[in-house]
Amino acid sequence: MFKIPTLDKLVHEIARLPGVGPKSAQRLTHFLLKNPNYSEELRETLKLVEESIVLCKTCFNYTDNPERICRICQSPHRSAELMCVVEQPEDILQIESSGGYSGLYHVLHGAISPLEGMTPEKLKIRELIKRLDSADGVIEEVILAVDSDLEGDTTVLYLNQELSERSLKVTRLAQGIPMGSDIDYIDDRTLHRALSHRTEV
Amino acid sequence: MFKIPTLDKLVHEIARLPGVGPKSAQRLTHFLLKNPNYSEELRETLKLVEESIVLCKTCFNYTDNPERICRICQSPHRSAELMCVVEQPEDILQIESSGGYSGLYHVLHGAISPLEGMTPEKLKIRELIKRLDSADGVIEEVILAVDSDLEGDTTVLYLNQELSERSLKVTRLAQGIPMGSDIDYIDDRTLHRALSHRTEV
Repeated sequence: MFKIPTLDKLVHEIARLPGVGPKSAQRLTHFLLKNPNYSEELRETLKLVEESIVLCKTCFNYTDNPERICRICQSPHRSAELMCVVEQPEDILQIESSGGYSGLYHVLHGAISPLEGMTPEKLKIRELIKRLDSADGVIEEVILAVDSDLEGDTTVLYLNQELSERSLKVTRLAQGIPMGSDIDYIDDRTLHRALSHRTEV
Repeated sequence: MFKIPTLDKLVHEIARLPGVGPKSAQRLTHFLLKNPNYSEELRETLKLVEESIVLCKTCFNYTDNPERICRICQSPHRSAELMCVVEQPEDILQIESSGGYSGLYHVLHGAISPLEGMTPEKLKIRELIKRLDSADGVIEEVILAVDSDLEGDTTVLYLNQELSERSLKVTRLAQGIPMGSDIDYIDDRTLHRALSHRTEV
């Protein structure tokens, strides 16, 4: 370490970033010391982000609109009868870049995981149900685009139960072998799921 | 990308950090969005570093002393007859943690590289010579602890020539096979150097 308290604090803070180890943190600190203009610019952008980025009041995606309505919720070109439920705002970027979807979104901000204290009340599930109920039957299908893991499965089960009384089609993303992959290298659980969900050609 | 200018700017700026690609930059941006307290703390530490860290007026290492004298130059426990010349302040940390040195330092802030526009005038060489001349013969040995590459070799040649008229011992770090390494895997140039610099046992 530097044995200079301010610098050691910076190294320590940078090392808290995901995927940044102590050695990288030291290297990044040196870069910041050598580029004071960059450091200042970064600070200003961080401040701007802290001050201007809010959650959309409808779908809970990020937005810089002070009215708290995001770009997608505002767009007249999106199919209002489709709603895609995702765990995190970053999932929206991924789905948008796939080009396979043109409906609306709803961000849960997590998945149900009782072990980690993520109960349904801590997610935007109440808001989802309220939104569906107040849509007056415009929404026909809810696509659950949650992760393909235990927390995702729990969330699908819970939401399916909650939404079962409503006249809605509830779907989830197809699970199976990823594109371009070799059957030899696919894990057992994926192959099992791909077999039981096989489709007609 | 987010299609939110402020967020895209942050991703772009984070991606300028060494070793951070566009995907990591996006991930770090999400982390910062989810941890506004962390973001604020990081900004404050960056500001503190920008405002308080200066170069030592003697050796050009970093210091938070407003008098611009670093911890090592101030210490009465360092051997004043030894001076170790390094390329970057981070090299001092490395040499200190090796535990093999207790003299003073001088940071050049680079190495001679005419191709990259790093001429001797852009380094702290003038300051080094002035420092040696004003030390009144206290300094007996100058250890050139520069990198073992073309730029380091050029710097050694240049400094050796500049210092040759003075009654100083000029040395450089031993070059050879690193500790714990297997001769099988050593590159030709290192092995060549290790052979010609072989030591008596």
